[in-house]
This record gives sequence, C-alpha cells and structure tokens, in this order.
Amino acid sequence: MTSINVPIIQNILQANDFVAEENRKIFSDHHIFCINIMAAPGAGKTALILKTIELLRGSVRIGVIEGDTASVTIDSDKVVLAGAPAVQVTTAGDCHMDAMMVRKGMEQLPLDELDLVIIENIGNLICPAEWDLGSHSNTLIASIAEGDDKPWKYPNIYRNLNAVVVTKTDLLPYVDFNLEHFSQGVNILNPDVDIFPTSAKTGAGLDLWTDWLLSQIEAASRA
Amino acid sequence: MTSINVPIIQNILQANDFVAEENRKIFSDHHIFCINIMAAPGAGKTALILKTIELLRGSVRIGVIEGDTASVTIDSDKVVLAGAPAVQVTTAGDCHMDAMMVRKGMEQLPLDELDLVIIENIGNLICPAEWDLGSHSNTLIASIAEGDDKPWKYPNIYRNLNAVVVTKTDLLPYVDFNLEHFSQGVNILNPDVDIFPTSAKTGAGLDLWTDWLLSQIEAASRA
Repeated sequence: MTSINVPIIQNILQANDFVAEENRKIFSDHHIFCINIMAAPGAGKTALILKTIELLRGSVRIGVIEGDTASVTIDSDKVVLAGAPAVQVTTAGDCHMDAMMVRKGMEQLPLDELDLVIIENIGNLICPAEWDLGSHSNTLIASIAEGDDKPWKYPNIYRNLNAVVVTKTDLLPYVDFNLEHFSQGVNILNPDVDIFPTSAKTGAGLDLWTDWLLSQIEAASRA
Repeated sequence: MTSINVPIIQNILQANDFVAEENRKIFSDHHIFCINIMAAPGAGKTALILKTIELLRGSVRIGVIEGDTASVTIDSDKVVLAGAPAVQVTTAGDCHMDAMMVRKGMEQLPLDELDLVIIENIGNLICPAEWDLGSHSNTLIASIAEGDDKPWKYPNIYRNLNAVVVTKTDLLPYVDFNLEHFSQGVNILNPDVDIFPTSAKTGAGLDLWTDWLLSQIEAASRA
C-alpha cells in the first residue's frame, strides 16, 4: 500500500472553483451579467453601487449580494432603500467571500427578474484575490485617498481585473494622487483593463462606467 | 491505543503567542516600547510614522519593522530616508504579520540603541486582528476618507486597542465623516481607548499623539 499525499489547500480551492463555475453557468443561463466588486475598506464600493442603481433605474434590473464580516446590515439596508433586492452574506469574521457564500446569496435573489448581479466583496485588498466567486467580471475600486502606489503594494488583487473604478476624484485637489502613476501600475498587471475615474459625489465620470456596464450586460443578455 | 485529536489551528496560534511573549520580553529587556500599527490600505500609516520620526527626532531613537505583502521597499525606503533604521518583512502575499516575522525583523535592528520600535502591519482590517506580534500596544489608524462606520463593520480589529489615530482630518470639509459617530463605535468596543484626530499634512493633533507616545516610552524605559 502506498501512502497518498493529498494537498489540502489545493482541494479546497478546487471545490470552490467547481461551485464558482456552476454559479457562473447559473448566471449565464439567466442571461445575467455578474460583477464582483473588490476594494479596500472605505473605498466607496457601496456609494458606487447606490449610484449605479440610481443611474440604471428603469433600464437594468439589479440585484446585490452584500458580503460583510460582521452581521450588520448597514450596506444591504442602503441598497434595499435604493430599490434593489439585496442579500447580505456574513463571513463571521472571515476575510473573503467564497463561491458557496455567493450560491447561498443567489438562492435568495429573484434571478429570473434580474439583468445584473453585483457582488460587494469584503473590504480587503489581499485575501479575496484567490477566490473565484463565479462572476463574469472582477472590478476593483480604488479611492483617490488611498494613494497611487496600491497596484505596486497589493499586486495580487490588482491582477486579472476587467475594470478599475477610481473613486472620490472630487478629492483630487486635496490629496497627493497621480492618476498616470496609478494607471501605469494597473496596466503593468493588466495591459487591456479599462480605468474609470469617478466621483459619486459630483457624478463625474459615472456615465463612462455605466456605459461600460451596459455593454457588458447587453453582451450577457445575447449570450 | 486511543486516537489523539490535535486542534491544528489552536496549536499554530499557541506557537505564535509563545514567540510573541518572547518578543515582548526582549523589547522590555531593552527598555523599548513596541507599538503595532494596523490600518486599512492607504489609511496613512507610513505618513504618520514619518511624521512621528520627524517630531521625535533628537529625543527618541526609533526603529521600524515594515510589513509588506509584496517585496517592494517603497515604505521602508521612505523611513530610512527619514533617518530611522528600518527592516522590511515580506509576507509573500499573506494577509497578516505573525510573531516570527517580527522576530526576524528584530534581529536586524540595533535594539540596544532604540527606545521605540514601530511595527507597520499589513494594510488589512481583518486578518491581523488575531495575531499577537509581541508589541506592548496596538494602535489602529483610520482615515477620515474611509467613513465613520468602520468600527461597526470591522469590529474584530477595533477590539483590544490602546489608541486610535484618526488621519487626514484636513479632508473633513470635503467628506462625510462624523467624529462623534466614529468615536461611539470605537468606545463601545474599547471604553478607555484614546482617540487622536490628526493630519500629517497640516500637523494638526500630532502633538497630542506624540505626547501619548512619549508617556508610553517613558513608562517602558522605567520598567
């Protein structure tokens, strides 16, 4: 009898990836475009989601899966107030969401009545990087106030992105942030990624972001 | 023969805590006060450390252990430029520092010639919470730009703090941040914690922060 060496971590990731692939297929079967939004704490994920719901109201039916480490419903309450169905998934202190949490969230959403599902991931620039949730797109949100060196300091999460939304550009006059330096860091890791400078406060740049989102949703609906 | 069930996670933490206790004793034997600074990415840890080095120059000898997920020396280079010995410890993608990493950093610092060692932890509001590094004090840095709801959303890291430094207060006129609401959240978890609103840009409030630090260093030097 030979001993069998089972690489445990790899197995957990394989199970996650298996569920993630199924999630993606369920979304696709419902002609839903699913986007995973990642960011540092306080980058403005919720503010961007609320603005997106407001701007696409009447044309796109949006559902939100809210990841939180604690069982506070601060963010999901805001989303429901904005008129979109929202499910909160609590990680109980864990530092990232996984595909199974998304599946549990999906089961609570009226998928037949949605065009876009937004996953608001845990505020964390490290741990979510390795976990496929079953989304079609990974978007990273970066606040002007965080500084322009983050792609260099957190390269893992800045890899494999489809879009980067730079938030709080209304603060540009008051903080040191060089958009060119930041974009250079993003593009070293993702040569073809779209970068959208925005301000949820003034509304600047949000049209380009929603245009990109609409084009992705349209492609998903035709698939 | 009975089977023995070893709780693996608990054992890893026990080893970490063992090394952490040793680290703390080594610091104390050298009459060094050691502070662990935690924060979200971009909260202004490095800016606060640089300002602290500048303000205490000539009266306090400071060494810095810089935690980074990637092997970029952006932060440690800045600290060395500011005139303090700095050691960079890279976690190779891992989401927190542990006591062993601090030990490796300590071995590179001239402990006999220092009064204060600052550990700049990984930018992460979740994972560092559970890891004792062997510091005497845990300080959390929170940027005004992150929003005032973070103690409610990341309670684990907001527990067991000795001080909270609120940074970037120069942005108060431009962002929605209620200091009273924030402080209430901090104090629910830590009734006796000191909260220092500061701006590294204008210098506001830094005197109260360095006064607090000096009193802690003095107490450690007498111990």
